[in-house]
Amino acid sequence: MKKTIIVFSGDLDKAMASFIIANGAAAMGDEVTLFFTFWGLNILRKPEYMPGKKSFMEKMFGWMMPKGPEKLGISKMNFGGLGAILMKSIMKQKKVESLQNLMATATTLGVKLIACTMSMEVMGFRPEELIDGLEFAGVATYLGEADSANVNLFI
Amino acid sequence: MKKTIIVFSGDLDKAMASFIIANGAAAMGDEVTLFFTFWGLNILRKPEYMPGKKSFMEKMFGWMMPKGPEKLGISKMNFGGLGAILMKSIMKQKKVESLQNLMATATTLGVKLIACTMSMEVMGFRPEELIDGLEFAGVATYLGEADSANVNLFI
Amino acid sequence: MKKTIIVFSGDLDKAMASFIIANGAAAMGDEVTLFFTFWGLNILRKPEYMPGKKSFMEKMFGWMMPKGPEKLGISKMNFGGLGAILMKSIMKQKKVESLQNLMATATTLGVKLIACTMSMEVMGFRPEELIDGLEFAGVATYLGEADSANVNLFI
Repeated sequence: MKKTIIVFSGDLDKAMASFIIANGAAAMGDEVTLFFTFWGLNILRKPEYMPGKKSFMEKMFGWMMPKGPEKLGISKMNFGGLGAILMKSIMKQKKVESLQNLMATATTLGVKLIACTMSMEVMGFRPEELIDGLEFAGVATYLGEADSANVNLFI
Repeated sequence: MKKTIIVFSGDLDKAMASFIIANGAAAMGDEVTLFFTFWGLNILRKPEYMPGKKSFMEKMFGWMMPKGPEKLGISKMNFGGLGAILMKSIMKQKKVESLQNLMATATTLGVKLIACTMSMEVMGFRPEELIDGLEFAGVATYLGEADSANVNLFI
Repeated sequence: MKKTIIVFSGDLDKAMASFIIANGAAAMGDEVTLFFTFWGLNILRKPEYMPGKKSFMEKMFGWMMPKGPEKLGISKMNFGGLGAILMKSIMKQKKVESLQNLMATATTLGVKLIACTMSMEVMGFRPEELIDGLEFAGVATYLGEADSANVNLFI
């Protein structure tokens, strides 16, 4: 049965939880759709900065927000990024897959990644600033996917 | 098919996500119930302050917490309210509906708004401090609604 | 019908919401599974500190993170623990059950509590540091439970 997750959060810990659930379900044969919105879009950003033709506010957004999985903070005890560094070092030591690896696995397993177009518009993110292999859609598409799923989470 | 959302968060960005999903589903013909609890009740407050017959603690709660959609902060990078102001200004510029408009649309579309009576009791909010058109109920009512829905989110 | 909740958050307010929903459903005859992961594991910790044979990082985690329901903060306006103390005092006054009582009731009602083994490994928590009566399992078990449930939340 299909599963969907709205990935609203852009925190490393919650992003990892999203992909661990998604990959687990996909590995068990489920169809899985992740719908990235608001801060969750930061997970999908490429690491390089692309100013392009942006308004002042869009540039500021682009500059202040984390560019991809390597730059995300954790939702608690982040201490200006130190917490995220510690967590990543512990996870590496414990042989837990990194977020980058989880994302690559998701792609291999056929997890569908949708970037919310309305949030992209608000934050001024263009498709070329985000990783390859995404679909672009709005809330109606999400609702269609959720309607045919038996587990729908908001993270 | 019915959808339910528990709106636990009182952050502007999460409140907007809740209403965007709710209105999208309602526009597609779904029955939708939003159940507001804990911080989520702040979304429903009227802007004026109503001390009334309250204990010291209830007055403090009433005074410290945001009074309605205009006063909510955002869940990340709020910087004492500056983030929320910036986000609202960007959304206005991008022609994204404000939370107030989303709430009005929800009412027009027949989205059911339930305020959690137990949370109201804890926070000392009386029905007249909250917007009109609400229902008042507890967790058993939520569970009844969720049982007949096919998408249930906690935001 | 079965209900599942992923308890990712270790905040007092969200922990209480999880158990209020779980106990409500269980009291109405539903089978309920709570799956504790990441910060949510802190809810299950015993109050005493057990260093044992731990790496430096695991000791630091064990020392910095809250040991059980008595020590949790709230997700907003915690002010270094003051917010949690105030909330507990208000709830006591309003005759709302404490988190400890809610947890005891959950056990009585037969709510299944599962601790995520991968998160335990990352945080360096051993089974004897957590309360009695837990099951230990991973994401595949969660997905199996969710597949046979009609309400699945992520808190």
